[in-house]
Amino acid sequence: MENKTITSVNNPLIKKLYKLRDNKKQQLSDGIILVEGKNNIDEARKLNLVEFLLTTNEIDNNKDIRVTENVIKKLSSLKNPDTTIAVVKLPVYESKKYKRVIFLEGIQDPGNLGTIIRSAVAFNFDAIYLSKNSSYLYNQKVISSSQGAIFMIPIFQMDLLKAIDLYDYNVISTHLSEESEFIDKTNFPESFAIAFGNEGTGISSELLSRSKSNVSIKISNIDSLNVAIAASIAMFEISKK
Amino acid sequence: MENKTITSVNNPLIKKLYKLRDNKKQQLSDGIILVEGKNNIDEARKLNLVEFLLTTNEIDNNKDIRVTENVIKKLSSLKNPDTTIAVVKLPVYESKKYKRVIFLEGIQDPGNLGTIIRSAVAFNFDAIYLSKNSSYLYNQKVISSSQGAIFMIPIFQMDLLKAIDLYDYNVISTHLSEESEFIDKTNFPESFAIAFGNEGTGISSELLSRSKSNVSIKISNIDSLNVAIAASIAMFEISKK
Repeated sequence: MENKTITSVNNPLIKKLYKLRDNKKQQLSDGIILVEGKNNIDEARKLNLVEFLLTTNEIDNNKDIRVTENVIKKLSSLKNPDTTIAVVKLPVYESKKYKRVIFLEGIQDPGNLGTIIRSAVAFNFDAIYLSKNSSYLYNQKVISSSQGAIFMIPIFQMDLLKAIDLYDYNVISTHLSEESEFIDKTNFPESFAIAFGNEGTGISSELLSRSKSNVSIKISNIDSLNVAIAASIAMFEISKK
Repeated sequence: MENKTITSVNNPLIKKLYKLRDNKKQQLSDGIILVEGKNNIDEARKLNLVEFLLTTNEIDNNKDIRVTENVIKKLSSLKNPDTTIAVVKLPVYESKKYKRVIFLEGIQDPGNLGTIIRSAVAFNFDAIYLSKNSSYLYNQKVISSSQGAIFMIPIFQMDLLKAIDLYDYNVISTHLSEESEFIDKTNFPESFAIAFGNEGTGISSELLSRSKSNVSIKISNIDSLNVAIAASIAMFEISKK
């Protein structure tokens, strides 16, 4: 059976997907995003999240849609688009108390966010809570720097104080203060949320006041580490315990 | 004393600096680059590397040059330029055997490179050797993500095998193999070079064959960490010993 190839960017489906591409609100209300990159598409597929592919490659099923290169170019947000774009439904996760949790407050850089997600999966964390004033979760740069990990861990973009209210998380903030312990000398409880703050200003006073303790990473010569680096070192340390 | 303000992008000095901005060869032969960003300019100034500033701010000396906003915009490589661009001379470092050394082979992403440099300074490493097929060292993205650290540690962009020949470095490669030890279980000698490879392909077989041992970081669920993350975790672990 030969499927029809979509060759025009004015095709109604393509026009609809093009609108969706840059419309965060619609993405969240429809629960649908466009995903590029082999690793990301492979992960989404493993988790049964791929609705269908748009591809210039040959197809072997009734779901996927063959398109011409101009269509991929129109829909892609990459300078050098791949041959395939996936239409992916957003995973839905159970709202509950998780055991080892990351709190991210005001993480602005999508590359940092994606990298933290990748490390969180590598170091076996159970969930991520992302403050509303952080980067948009399904930004293409977040997805691509997560290398597929974005689909492998529950992530909730919501008010962090509300998450504490709901689940009584034991919050440990990465923050340099007189009482902060070095992370490699710290005993972590069985269940906790470790918090990382904004690239420039760190963790807010509101969240600090709700934290049970502070930890820091010992560094020399400069004031701070990149936040994705700090978060990953902390997760690595914790994963060893 | 009132200095003259440069208002035209056709001023010979501005034209010369504009040419320099994107010409790597000339930067290296003249030993001069343009630097933006407060942290980077502050660090360069501390190390006496700033030749002069071009700034829309008031100036209080004979060296710096006041310019109008259009001149800054012309010379800047940022979307939202700051008020100041520094003309900075490249630091020159002694070619010798350093004690704790980083080898970077084929690091493509300038953000990764800058972040690794920042972490190397934070964790007290002594020098970085960067392979020729890596990102250009004085790329603005490298400078900005190093947050000033690029001026704080000797960095040599040269053939890594030649560096081994010259100084007999004891190379430890971050590479997963049957014999590789986990980094947190490894005893490091007093002097060594720890090597990190390309984002996609890792360390070359040539460099592996010149390595004394391999180490790796224990991860789950996914195949690899971002290289800046892996390098920083390794440096953190080593800094504790």
